[in-house]
Amino acid sequence: MDLNSLRSPLAFLQSRLPEISQSNVLEAEQAWWKNEGIAISDAIDRAGTPWLRMFDRLGKRVDEIRRPLEYQTILKRGYRAGVVWRALEEKSLIPTYLLMYAISYYDPGICCPYTVSLGTAVPLAKYGSAELQARFLPQLLRKDDSVWQGATWMTEIKGGSDLGAAVETIARPAGDRWLLTGEKYFTSNAGAELAVVAARPEGVAPGVRGLALFLVPRYRENGELNYFIRRLKDKIATRSVPTGEVELKVSEGYLLGSVDSGIYLILEVLNLSRVANSVVSVALAQRAMADALSYAAQRAAFGKPILDHPLLRHQFETRLNALRSAFALAWESVQLLNDVWMERAPYSDRYHLFRLVAHLAKYWTAEFAVDTAKWAMEVHGGLGVLAEYGVERWQREAMILAIWEGTSHRQILDGLEVMERKRAHQLLFRRLAEIAPAKELQEMESEVEQHLKLRTEEREALAEPLFRRLAIFTAETLARKSK
Amino acid sequence: MDLNSLRSPLAFLQSRLPEISQSNVLEAEQAWWKNEGIAISDAIDRAGTPWLRMFDRLGKRVDEIRRPLEYQTILKRGYRAGVVWRALEEKSLIPTYLLMYAISYYDPGICCPYTVSLGTAVPLAKYGSAELQARFLPQLLRKDDSVWQGATWMTEIKGGSDLGAAVETIARPAGDRWLLTGEKYFTSNAGAELAVVAARPEGVAPGVRGLALFLVPRYRENGELNYFIRRLKDKIATRSVPTGEVELKVSEGYLLGSVDSGIYLILEVLNLSRVANSVVSVALAQRAMADALSYAAQRAAFGKPILDHPLLRHQFETRLNALRSAFALAWESVQLLNDVWMERAPYSDRYHLFRLVAHLAKYWTAEFAVDTAKWAMEVHGGLGVLAEYGVERWQREAMILAIWEGTSHRQILDGLEVMERKRAHQLLFRRLAEIAPAKELQEMESEVEQHLKLRTEEREALAEPLFRRLAIFTAETLARKSK
Amino acid sequence: MDLNSLRSPLAFLQSRLPEISQSNVLEAEQAWWKNEGIAISDAIDRAGTPWLRMFDRLGKRVDEIRRPLEYQTILKRGYRAGVVWRALEEKSLIPTYLLMYAISYYDPGICCPYTVSLGTAVPLAKYGSAELQARFLPQLLRKDDSVWQGATWMTEIKGGSDLGAAVETIARPAGDRWLLTGEKYFTSNAGAELAVVAARPEGVAPGVRGLALFLVPRYRENGELNYFIRRLKDKIATRSVPTGEVELKVSEGYLLGSVDSGIYLILEVLNLSRVANSVVSVALAQRAMADALSYAAQRAAFGKPILDHPLLRHQFETRLNALRSAFALAWESVQLLNDVWMERAPYSDRYHLFRLVAHLAKYWTAEFAVDTAKWAMEVHGGLGVLAEYGVERWQREAMILAIWEGTSHRQILDGLEVMERKRAHQLLFRRLAEIAPAKELQEMESEVEQHLKLRTEEREALAEPLFRRLAIFTAETLARKSK
Amino acid sequence: MDLNSLRSPLAFLQSRLPEISQSNVLEAEQAWWKNEGIAISDAIDRAGTPWLRMFDRLGKRVDEIRRPLEYQTILKRGYRAGVVWRALEEKSLIPTYLLMYAISYYDPGICCPYTVSLGTAVPLAKYGSAELQARFLPQLLRKDDSVWQGATWMTEIKGGSDLGAAVETIARPAGDRWLLTGEKYFTSNAGAELAVVAARPEGVAPGVRGLALFLVPRYRENGELNYFIRRLKDKIATRSVPTGEVELKVSEGYLLGSVDSGIYLILEVLNLSRVANSVVSVALAQRAMADALSYAAQRAAFGKPILDHPLLRHQFETRLNALRSAFALAWESVQLLNDVWMERAPYSDRYHLFRLVAHLAKYWTAEFAVDTAKWAMEVHGGLGVLAEYGVERWQREAMILAIWEGTSHRQILDGLEVMERKRAHQLLFRRLAEIAPAKELQEMESEVEQHLKLRTEEREALAEPLFRRLAIFTAETLARKSK
Repeated sequence: MDLNSLRSPLAFLQSRLPEISQSNVLEAEQAWWKNEGIAISDAIDRAGTPWLRMFDRLGKRVDEIRRPLEYQTILKRGYRAGVVWRALEEKSLIPTYLLMYAISYYDPGICCPYTVSLGTAVPLAKYGSAELQARFLPQLLRKDDSVWQGATWMTEIKGGSDLGAAVETIARPAGDRWLLTGEKYFTSNAGAELAVVAARPEGVAPGVRGLALFLVPRYRENGELNYFIRRLKDKIATRSVPTGEVELKVSEGYLLGSVDSGIYLILEVLNLSRVANSVVSVALAQRAMADALSYAAQRAAFGKPILDHPLLRHQFETRLNALRSAFALAWESVQLLNDVWMERAPYSDRYHLFRLVAHLAKYWTAEFAVDTAKWAMEVHGGLGVLAEYGVERWQREAMILAIWEGTSHRQILDGLEVMERKRAHQLLFRRLAEIAPAKELQEMESEVEQHLKLRTEEREALAEPLFRRLAIFTAETLARKSK
Repeated sequence: MDLNSLRSPLAFLQSRLPEISQSNVLEAEQAWWKNEGIAISDAIDRAGTPWLRMFDRLGKRVDEIRRPLEYQTILKRGYRAGVVWRALEEKSLIPTYLLMYAISYYDPGICCPYTVSLGTAVPLAKYGSAELQARFLPQLLRKDDSVWQGATWMTEIKGGSDLGAAVETIARPAGDRWLLTGEKYFTSNAGAELAVVAARPEGVAPGVRGLALFLVPRYRENGELNYFIRRLKDKIATRSVPTGEVELKVSEGYLLGSVDSGIYLILEVLNLSRVANSVVSVALAQRAMADALSYAAQRAAFGKPILDHPLLRHQFETRLNALRSAFALAWESVQLLNDVWMERAPYSDRYHLFRLVAHLAKYWTAEFAVDTAKWAMEVHGGLGVLAEYGVERWQREAMILAIWEGTSHRQILDGLEVMERKRAHQLLFRRLAEIAPAKELQEMESEVEQHLKLRTEEREALAEPLFRRLAIFTAETLARKSK
Repeated sequence: MDLNSLRSPLAFLQSRLPEISQSNVLEAEQAWWKNEGIAISDAIDRAGTPWLRMFDRLGKRVDEIRRPLEYQTILKRGYRAGVVWRALEEKSLIPTYLLMYAISYYDPGICCPYTVSLGTAVPLAKYGSAELQARFLPQLLRKDDSVWQGATWMTEIKGGSDLGAAVETIARPAGDRWLLTGEKYFTSNAGAELAVVAARPEGVAPGVRGLALFLVPRYRENGELNYFIRRLKDKIATRSVPTGEVELKVSEGYLLGSVDSGIYLILEVLNLSRVANSVVSVALAQRAMADALSYAAQRAAFGKPILDHPLLRHQFETRLNALRSAFALAWESVQLLNDVWMERAPYSDRYHLFRLVAHLAKYWTAEFAVDTAKWAMEVHGGLGVLAEYGVERWQREAMILAIWEGTSHRQILDGLEVMERKRAHQLLFRRLAEIAPAKELQEMESEVEQHLKLRTEEREALAEPLFRRLAIFTAETLARKSK
Repeated sequence: MDLNSLRSPLAFLQSRLPEISQSNVLEAEQAWWKNEGIAISDAIDRAGTPWLRMFDRLGKRVDEIRRPLEYQTILKRGYRAGVVWRALEEKSLIPTYLLMYAISYYDPGICCPYTVSLGTAVPLAKYGSAELQARFLPQLLRKDDSVWQGATWMTEIKGGSDLGAAVETIARPAGDRWLLTGEKYFTSNAGAELAVVAARPEGVAPGVRGLALFLVPRYRENGELNYFIRRLKDKIATRSVPTGEVELKVSEGYLLGSVDSGIYLILEVLNLSRVANSVVSVALAQRAMADALSYAAQRAAFGKPILDHPLLRHQFETRLNALRSAFALAWESVQLLNDVWMERAPYSDRYHLFRLVAHLAKYWTAEFAVDTAKWAMEVHGGLGVLAEYGVERWQREAMILAIWEGTSHRQILDGLEVMERKRAHQLLFRRLAEIAPAKELQEMESEVEQHLKLRTEEREALAEPLFRRLAIFTAETLARKSK
């Protein structure tokens, strides 16, 4: 088996996708990252969490995020290449996710700002009034370094899974805008010029149906800070994105969609980031394998390169197959999302199919990334646990991918729900029917149906092995197609 | 299922072992760690890699390792409690490994100095001349804070697996001692007062049979430094032990055993540390579960503690079972080692059985620890990836356990070898016969025998799944006994 | 000249003060610091700014300050030795400032918590109601490790000099207590159990006369946090004390003294800390000289120890003289304060004399400490600028002493004011008349009087050289007495 | 007095020097630093000491210095602008030192690599054989980013002042080259492609006359590392230059000049760096004042900007005068060096005059820089001691300037020597006669002559106040000329 496709993101993409649009754009990104970006990304990871200058020398609150200047170099490059503007201009998410794959092979964290910027631009374009769009959309789609960044802030201190109970931020109407007060506890891309923020309009019903989504700019119309960064989180990785805690204090906000439809908008935003998470996870796994490969091909023991020892070579080959499967699953979620991202509730069957595939992909690609990162460390032996050689970084990065955008538990339970309520598994099996051997498909189908008949308690308790089998089955089946 | 045994190391030990010797010693350690040790260990982890003062102000080479004073507090406590002296005084390893379990629940790294100190005292007691023993052994067995530490330095820059090729340190005879010159690349417990060091006596045959083992004190007889610490390694965890690179420059050494038997002594030292690694891995897994448990019992979502959600509760129960199995396997390796640790080559069958079990235990307990640490992070959700809450530390620590003392690859291949050459699997199956259902045992046995008939290339390539099944089978079988 | 008195704080104190009370207490402290404390202090300095755990894992606001456990060891030791309780129990500040001298020779920063604890206990004992005293004083005076710490928080974001304009924290009466709301920008000993806080009772006149002083406990009566630590400051030194920003949000407070007398109480608190600053500055200068001495006596160049080179030896001798003068000035401020610390407005002449001497001492001892620290670095040559050898720390520490408790500018201008308004210079010259040669005294007196006749603008503009001469003259004159 | 000249390096230079060559080059540098360089420099300072990758993943010694990529951006910019090549191409040091002034206003440390690169190129150009020049000079003078860096390594562990005793590195002849073995303890710009290194040719006389100067490339002719970096020093500042310890192990070197003339070459190299140190010190002092000014002009207390308070305004004005004097002294040393830098021993009177002025300038400008940095911190009040606002950096940087290239002690003693032996003070007074009032000059002259008549012991012991007065007198006199 030819391991060379591991050596660059584009080589792997080309081995998997028959025809890639804009491959010249991807090639340019890949070349730049190889020559310069890797060193910058490495330095940013080592520099650790950026720091927050809360006040300037004169005592004015400024909430500046301080970090190496060269961070701007890597960050702005992706925006210029089109990771956000292409989606809206070309009305397709394919270029976005291709770029994300290529970039996150070099820096998995940097795709977080891109994703949340996309997650700001899309609901604005879809649900914002003409006036709001005219006022804010052009800045998010600029093709130069003056581009604005977006952010998507939902989670509060009580947690991110049960938003209906956890969101306590209140929005009060005030003429053409709303005034928001509350605290957000995990705010990726803190400092963004524009954020979409989940809040509860004053007086509405409790629970998840009472949430609405608002656009909150960094600065008020009078030029003052509109939200406040209380502090930055000291994360173990993804240091390319500042994650903070944000205080909204009578902050100006603009409603997106209607007052009682917030949860739909929130989930649509999550769709974009879960798919991104899957794509990034696969790219990260490839990168960890590529590092292991370059080492194993050169490091000798017992008279030959360790790559030529049967056990390790076999592991490389098996894992390359698994990488291909994981990619096929992730890419299926990209393509399905590309079909449905402009839908609004009530949604089509294709949308429900997408949701199931997205849960399977988010779950499985992250698991695979974590496992692959661990394995790459082992291939490096003792060097694997030294900060000096960087391979340990991939595990830190991968762990964040496994937790962000919903942990594996959440994917499993939400995936179960979409099977129960929308029979999404049937849509999936129909989709796979053209590829999978009939017998295998039948077995899988019957296993799922059996499981769904269990009583609630058991159905949830035993969901993990089923979900894992379904994810692997789907991934492997989809990967056959590409052979 | 009662999860409460997770809440302290002694509670779990008591649930697994019918009668524990010295449980009052263990209780005292546990109580102290809970009240004070945890905070010290946490601070040492956060402080990161210690630093090396190579020269004093006057330009004299001193190679002092600088770290918080309170590190001495936690370190010396274990020595006083008897983690080394009890083994030799009580002629049993049981108290040592019980103590290691209890301590490493709170700080997995601190057991490394203990293990290498034991790995210095044992070969000295076993193979050292009366004069050498009189000169050095009492210091290693002191019961107060003046106790000396040991260290075991084998690995050089070409790697730790293929010692025969990698060890280039040369020893030249010089009267009653030897003079060693070379560089050691991974030296745990750098700065120890006494180290056992693998070197190649000048003029002997190449390869692994040409190695000998030497005792190397920190200071020469004239009071000068006898070895030099080139630098400390920036490891991702186990910051309780300084790992460095050591330069031997015509350093005074004392031969242990005979000139051509070094490899046996080296492997006997490794036995002690591999078993320690297994015990520590299980304790670490328990700790990660305990942290997850205390969180899950208090954190609420969807109207109840997350522990009461079926999926998570089921995972806790399944994982507690796996923890019990992993412990049973690790403890089997302890008991077998306790039978054979004073053997010398040529070895008994029991020794070969020990070796297989030790490989299975080192492999499987570390895999389980890594997986459990990952899962504990997920249980914490977003908090899991913040340095602030410490849960991410268990994954860093676990990764080192998976790599130290031979990676999983090495355990698999060495385990395979002891099955091929010594038929150790047959000894194992005989041991399990009293516990395992006959049919399962037969199936396992036949699977192993089939595998051993494969031609070399394939036998190695496909060894991992077999070895994994054998490890789990052995672990689960042994765990039945304890029920 | 005998440089040996430099080698320990007690040796120097004994050379300066004919009879020292409690010298056994001081000796015990000195011995402990030499053996253990130095290493702890060094590690705490290297560890840098402590960090703040704002929320626990369950999302409860806790504002815990996280730092090495051994910090508690050095901190609590001074409280036990009596740095606070002796002052109130023995009704004398002498034991306190002697202890501070001895301790700050080893760790200048640790005296900050002691000083602010004293600055909390004293106004409480002096102005607190019987009920308040009964409720809070015993905790501050405990002789074991359960002792409470105090803190004195005046400065807000607009600055610390012009309190009348800068303090915007508002206090509203609420039954037997007040409720305070505002932000404090430099809060030494953040996390203290009890703080005295400057605030403006609602509705009073603006300016410095409208300030009052309140006692604010860390926890409300219902057990909740009563103030919030927004963040800790990243200071260049004095890492033994956490300095933060504190938010008061309807925090419970208890009035000390009357509503319109706050400024007197604030200045009386400042008296305690300015004198402490002077004592610590001299101890720091001694320490820097002692480090330079031990180096210079051992380091050789051009064939002999550098201490034996005439230029350096001369510098040591000159500087030892200056150290004695600086000590005499600082100790004069101690003794005067000891006479007047229980006075209340309106104050005696002796109080005004104290104030002038305190300004001269705060100013001059800090200048001398900074200069001496710089010189000690130079004596170490290239080693002086390496973090490795610690001598650079004294300059960082000294700079904080020069700025805390009023910069040199502030001392000069306030010293000028007390001369203008209270003719305090005449009190000073009367005091010095018994020691100083008449002619020198006359010249100095006339120079001061001339200066005071200048018009305001010029009087301030040219005040620095005058104030410097007056400080040196006073210091040298007082030092004669001790010869 | 107009403080505006403080606000940029070029503004100040233009106020001092009637006509500046290449002011467009300086303007371009200034503009770039203001917009981008400041942020990079700030981040590099915060990032702390770079780290050393001693081995690559495969165990090959590489000694790579790892730091943010953007360090290259600021470093290479100065080389391109001509900080080295202009000196040799334009046969004048003026452009070099003008550039250094402008650049070091923004980053004082970065001028160290420039200076040592110049200190490598100049002796090569002056003393290197035609073949050596052809082989190495072009690389040092490149105008693009492929330019080589130089380094000047003299100091060993026994110290930098008494080179005759301290240099123990041995050079053995080997055909057309020499082989050097020894250790250098303070090696600025470790990692440079080419270094000039002081060593003792085997068999020569002891003492300073037995030193020779060698050119040592980073790589041997066979491509292997030619010197080894043992570690990097953790300095308190000048983080723009890696300072390390270097091991020479039979390293290839090429003799510059003759075997017994090394000390002349070494001192000529020191001339270049001492003058640079003076220029950088003045620029640093200006920068600290500029920061203080921008703060004081905006920060208000007692109803007006603190700059408008008489005491502070007076300090600004007095200090601006002192800055002008310091600059005049530093620039005099530049101009004199520009006259004599191509001289070889035996030297002219002008060379001796230069030496005295260089000692006065090195001494006084560094003292002034340290004092000004301290004062700028005080102007900032409490903010001055926070790492957050950067003003404390200037003091760290200044302390290094006071110690590098000979401490103040060394300047005083060497200045004394050149007065005694070469009567250089008479040359100086002759030079000043056209500017200084006759009476003042006479007094100064007589004071110096008196001092020189003291017996050795006293002459040295009391040298500091005399040297200080002479430095200030010379500086103030020279500054008159510029008015």
